[in-house]
Amino acid sequence: MSQDITLDVVREWDTKDILRGFRDHFVIPDGMIYLDGNSLGPAPKKALLALERAAHSEWGHDLIRSWNSAGWFNLPLKLGDKIGALIGAAEGQIAVCDSTSINIFKALSAAAKMRPDRKTIVAEGASFPTDLYIAEGFAASQPHLTLKLQGVDADRIEDLLSPDVGVVLLNHVNYRSGYLHDMKTMTARIQAAGALVIWDLCHSAGALDVELDACNADFAVGCTYKYINGGPGAPAFIYVAKRHQLQARQPLSGWWGHARPFAFEQQYEAAPAIARFLCGTQPILSMQSLNGALEVWQGVNMKDLRTKSLALTDLFIKLVEKRCNGYDLQLITSRNHSERGSQVGFTHPHAYEIMQALIAEQVIGDFRAPDVLRFGFTPLYLGFEDVWNAVEVLHNILITKRWQNPRFTAKNTVT
Amino acid sequence: MSQDITLDVVREWDTKDILRGFRDHFVIPDGMIYLDGNSLGPAPKKALLALERAAHSEWGHDLIRSWNSAGWFNLPLKLGDKIGALIGAAEGQIAVCDSTSINIFKALSAAAKMRPDRKTIVAEGASFPTDLYIAEGFAASQPHLTLKLQGVDADRIEDLLSPDVGVVLLNHVNYRSGYLHDMKTMTARIQAAGALVIWDLCHSAGALDVELDACNADFAVGCTYKYINGGPGAPAFIYVAKRHQLQARQPLSGWWGHARPFAFEQQYEAAPAIARFLCGTQPILSMQSLNGALEVWQGVNMKDLRTKSLALTDLFIKLVEKRCNGYDLQLITSRNHSERGSQVGFTHPHAYEIMQALIAEQVIGDFRAPDVLRFGFTPLYLGFEDVWNAVEVLHNILITKRWQNPRFTAKNTVT
Repeated sequence: MSQDITLDVVREWDTKDILRGFRDHFVIPDGMIYLDGNSLGPAPKKALLALERAAHSEWGHDLIRSWNSAGWFNLPLKLGDKIGALIGAAEGQIAVCDSTSINIFKALSAAAKMRPDRKTIVAEGASFPTDLYIAEGFAASQPHLTLKLQGVDADRIEDLLSPDVGVVLLNHVNYRSGYLHDMKTMTARIQAAGALVIWDLCHSAGALDVELDACNADFAVGCTYKYINGGPGAPAFIYVAKRHQLQARQPLSGWWGHARPFAFEQQYEAAPAIARFLCGTQPILSMQSLNGALEVWQGVNMKDLRTKSLALTDLFIKLVEKRCNGYDLQLITSRNHSERGSQVGFTHPHAYEIMQALIAEQVIGDFRAPDVLRFGFTPLYLGFEDVWNAVEVLHNILITKRWQNPRFTAKNTVT
Repeated sequence: MSQDITLDVVREWDTKDILRGFRDHFVIPDGMIYLDGNSLGPAPKKALLALERAAHSEWGHDLIRSWNSAGWFNLPLKLGDKIGALIGAAEGQIAVCDSTSINIFKALSAAAKMRPDRKTIVAEGASFPTDLYIAEGFAASQPHLTLKLQGVDADRIEDLLSPDVGVVLLNHVNYRSGYLHDMKTMTARIQAAGALVIWDLCHSAGALDVELDACNADFAVGCTYKYINGGPGAPAFIYVAKRHQLQARQPLSGWWGHARPFAFEQQYEAAPAIARFLCGTQPILSMQSLNGALEVWQGVNMKDLRTKSLALTDLFIKLVEKRCNGYDLQLITSRNHSERGSQVGFTHPHAYEIMQALIAEQVIGDFRAPDVLRFGFTPLYLGFEDVWNAVEVLHNILITKRWQNPRFTAKNTVT
């Protein structure tokens, strides 16, 4: 990147941006610079249309018939394949259903059962907390296995790959720092130690070029309401590698996972495919919104997305460090592309108040306790000039100390 | 009921019906007689409005801020209390979340742990299958407890209440026959035997006057997309009696169930309330649709609802048996009010084809394998003349044998 980055330069980059046209697919409020797509993606117009059709035509008019005529019952696997196209998974390996937390439980249950002689589950201490909580809840439910949960830093995980470790649960991109694991290398090392790996893709699916099959991943989970823009709390997904599907069993064995759900048999027989990771009836309105959101992705090349994402985060880091130098901001995101997701974090002693001031001026990022300013960069609807303008606002807030205004208090955040 | 029921008589009943005005709250396609609200409730206009507001204003415009400003994060407990008002539960005992199947798993996990020395779970063989499948999956996940699942007929359950039984899972209203359990008596007998009871209210919540607290129920679960009209696959609910909440632990311990979800702590600490039965992020669009649907219920007296429901099912049974006599229809629903939910089932050797013929003529019921014609009667949007007209269509199909038309084939149904 050149030393002299000016507004003219970034505008020039925007004109050359091959993903620029995608911004028109999204509802972005006037004047807002939205750097929080890593928490809740904005509404794709196609998602709103799909939702309206689902509500008025499918539910309102066609009613019960829509389970067949609108394909409601098949949505989990249909949408799973569409997500697979974004994260390097061949068809038939992903189901969209339930929440990320519940899908972690399913994956942990299945993986632990596939390594019955190994008593330990390893997870990172810096994981998004629900990963740790679910692992803790699962371990507590299996006292005969005496599963042990070890929270450790990412760089120490390999020290823990003892013969007693059956499953490793990793966040592909860390939710606070944006640290990106090398999926291929980590997967290989974990498998070489005889364990199975579960990748949590919440902060990488739709953010970068994930390659589950090429990395030989075992299991993965992720959400669809961040970079995939499926809608608030849109159903999550679970990936189970084809080679494991017939051995993998999970205890949330509801009727949607049955080999013949409509035969209404008394005994459970798991579907001989990814469908066995389904459980109960899914929230169709939220599912159809996601369905619409996924249409936007059909023309996106994930390598192009990754290239632009890194250019956006490079620009943001460079401009903040140049323009806001001397204001106590400390970068916690790696400068190394191979270790960076699609977000940038800075710590600051008054991170909370500064973020509130930014939000008040329509630059939307978020705060993560205790001291992190977190900014997500989403190539489909952000341009380089947006990054420039966001840094100008931040700079202005810092030099004027507007964040000291007492109205920037009362902490409440959601991932 | 008088012997001479004529069209004039039923029209007279409609004019006197105090719930008649509620029909205007619903989208009912022209010419349709919808007797399938026990499978998927039709769209309340207020649900469609709430959904549109959630999509365009809350998601589209306010974005991430809606987690607080639109109260998204509090919806599970807020909607739980609204549902509590319909099923006789005081505030703070119900959470709306996940699917019925998943909530059965949570309730079974918690209840079994509260009876650690008892190894057997009892469930009805005639339960909706997912109840059995989940119990089977849970039991298989707890081999150290050697939990045993026994599928039995409703009238034999009490014979099975041995000292080894820790948990009994019952369907309040049977999904096929419409058989209604006496909740108060059954609960007392199960508890007298030292066990805990889980009531599945899928076919009674919003259909009749359920009284969970007055019956001293332990746990309950149910769906919101049938009689409550929340929308296709709308999130389910779980009830845990106040007296059990601090002992009750469930292993799907995601971050929404944490005592301090936004502190992002590494260790799980269950919320000291019903919130501990929450797990992960909920599908907000589906949740807001349900929120709108629940507004309709605010003016409904559940005793009035029950009175009209029984009058509707009495009328249907009487008219079918009179008008369609001699056509092999066998009633499988109890004639006794205290044993009848809000649906009526008849068996017929050609039930599937007859139902297809009814649906083709806009009388929407459903078929349940192998031979059941199932009709749901929902007092908020059905009148007595609708029942009259539905029977006329059925009668006409039977006398003309129109169901023999070869297009009425290919079986596909959803509960």
